[in-house]
Amino acid sequence: MAALSLARVLGPCVATAILASCATTAPEPPAKRRALAEILKESPKADWRAPDPENTMYLDLAAGRIAIELAPDFAPRHVANIRTLVREGYFDGLAVIRAQDNYVAQWGDGEEAKAMGSASAKLAPEFTRPASGLAFDALPDADTYAPETGFSNGFAAARDAKADRAWMIHCYGVVGVGRGNDSDSGNGSSLYAIIGSPARLLDRNITVVGRVLRGIERLSTLRRGTGPLGFYERIEDRTLIAKARMAADVPAPERMKIEILRTDSATFREVVELRRWRRDDWYKEPAGRVDVCSSPVPVRDAP
Amino acid sequence: MAALSLARVLGPCVATAILASCATTAPEPPAKRRALAEILKESPKADWRAPDPENTMYLDLAAGRIAIELAPDFAPRHVANIRTLVREGYFDGLAVIRAQDNYVAQWGDGEEAKAMGSASAKLAPEFTRPASGLAFDALPDADTYAPETGFSNGFAAARDAKADRAWMIHCYGVVGVGRGNDSDSGNGSSLYAIIGSPARLLDRNITVVGRVLRGIERLSTLRRGTGPLGFYERIEDRTLIAKARMAADVPAPERMKIEILRTDSATFREVVELRRWRRDDWYKEPAGRVDVCSSPVPVRDAP
Repeated sequence: MAALSLARVLGPCVATAILASCATTAPEPPAKRRALAEILKESPKADWRAPDPENTMYLDLAAGRIAIELAPDFAPRHVANIRTLVREGYFDGLAVIRAQDNYVAQWGDGEEAKAMGSASAKLAPEFTRPASGLAFDALPDADTYAPETGFSNGFAAARDAKADRAWMIHCYGVVGVGRGNDSDSGNGSSLYAIIGSPARLLDRNITVVGRVLRGIERLSTLRRGTGPLGFYERIEDRTLIAKARMAADVPAPERMKIEILRTDSATFREVVELRRWRRDDWYKEPAGRVDVCSSPVPVRDAP
Repeated sequence: MAALSLARVLGPCVATAILASCATTAPEPPAKRRALAEILKESPKADWRAPDPENTMYLDLAAGRIAIELAPDFAPRHVANIRTLVREGYFDGLAVIRAQDNYVAQWGDGEEAKAMGSASAKLAPEFTRPASGLAFDALPDADTYAPETGFSNGFAAARDAKADRAWMIHCYGVVGVGRGNDSDSGNGSSLYAIIGSPARLLDRNITVVGRVLRGIERLSTLRRGTGPLGFYERIEDRTLIAKARMAADVPAPERMKIEILRTDSATFREVVELRRWRRDDWYKEPAGRVDVCSSPVPVRDAP
């Protein structure tokens, strides 16, 4: 009751923080829930979507394919530039040049300057975007870093409604645009993926363009670089990118047949609640909370 | 001022949550700070400690050594049992049997039951311990899962002062004791390390015994298992543990010469503040907050 009256005075954010972060005893969870496999198996077809081939990028390594869904809602200029780079063969024959443990794997341009073709060498940063007009399904849980977290069309995101800003969160598998010290020095020719703990200090400091849908283990298991920041010191330690393609440019039968659970669906809400209140034969003490990076968005082979 | 008066009414936890999680504009950070390398280089010798050889476990793989610091403050029974297992050669010739991407690598007993020797096959769980009597340097930042987080003698930990409980947090590199469905079924013969995002849903559900000081990349880069939960389906995919030893049983000249920054030191506080207010030639927008798993405790070669 004290929390409720505070909410009236101070707004929902404070009440959320009080309830989610400071309650020492979580309320009892509801009766036993369906298991994850069951929820997904019985989910309606309409709760899944195929990634747009115009926003899906394939990176082909000798070990196999990595599929990345790009997020033009958050970074339209960078996504367009990356499409251009991919279509002009920019990444073909380049390599993964960095793997820093518990941080990032990075690929694309190295010390050698490769011609950018029709792509822009400089782009205005897209570190955040207006919150207005963005689809956003908020989590009620308190977050250390952001006033509000949730999901926007499949991507983990944060929102500051008061400042009218939103941004993608550096959860595991998220892909961003490497840059130099200048905010406008990123252009998509150097990309990284998070291969460890969420790198929340990067949030709002760099342009995030998407997330790995399939094949993150081809990056996360790479031998770590021995140079500063995990850059490879020897060319032979790098992993070659045989080619990068937009899925739209690959003949339809050769595209990966995958579907992503819609984050505004009842099925996804049930998946999140299952994690929040996980109690089963093994789990004894449900957390009663869930943070945005601990609620991975399911991807499946298309049925 | 509103926050201060609330603190008087509702206690410091609520005030912390309001200040740390809900402020939409962080206060301006202080003047430019020393860089991390500089802080560590100029730190007093007394701010570092050598890990106790009786609490340091070496796992030797073909690829090299992994050093784990055990935490008897949190799990005295399990640490004692693990020492017994190590000293009786239990792990020698066993293997890493599981690597699940963005989750854990697990080693020790597999489907075959190996004799436990003088170690106990069942142990009362040590999922949490009393908060009273535990050294604890609290962070002021709000946390999604726990009323309070901080550090206890080098380990990331959570505290619920009201319930008088404390527990170690499943940050990257943390080591815990695999168990079956029964809470007392863990005994240390099967251990895991976190190799991805913090697994906070495991907190308070399993006994945590320590963390990897050196060599986590020997686990995090392992080929992922293709079976359910990342277990290896083929024996040849497993990574052999040549031998496990307590550092105390290794001749002193052959021990790893490493030191850990004391988490109750002024140097560590400065390191944490540096992360919280990171602003330099590259970082434009300091987070103004830091979560406990994003403040790794520095380990260095002994000078």
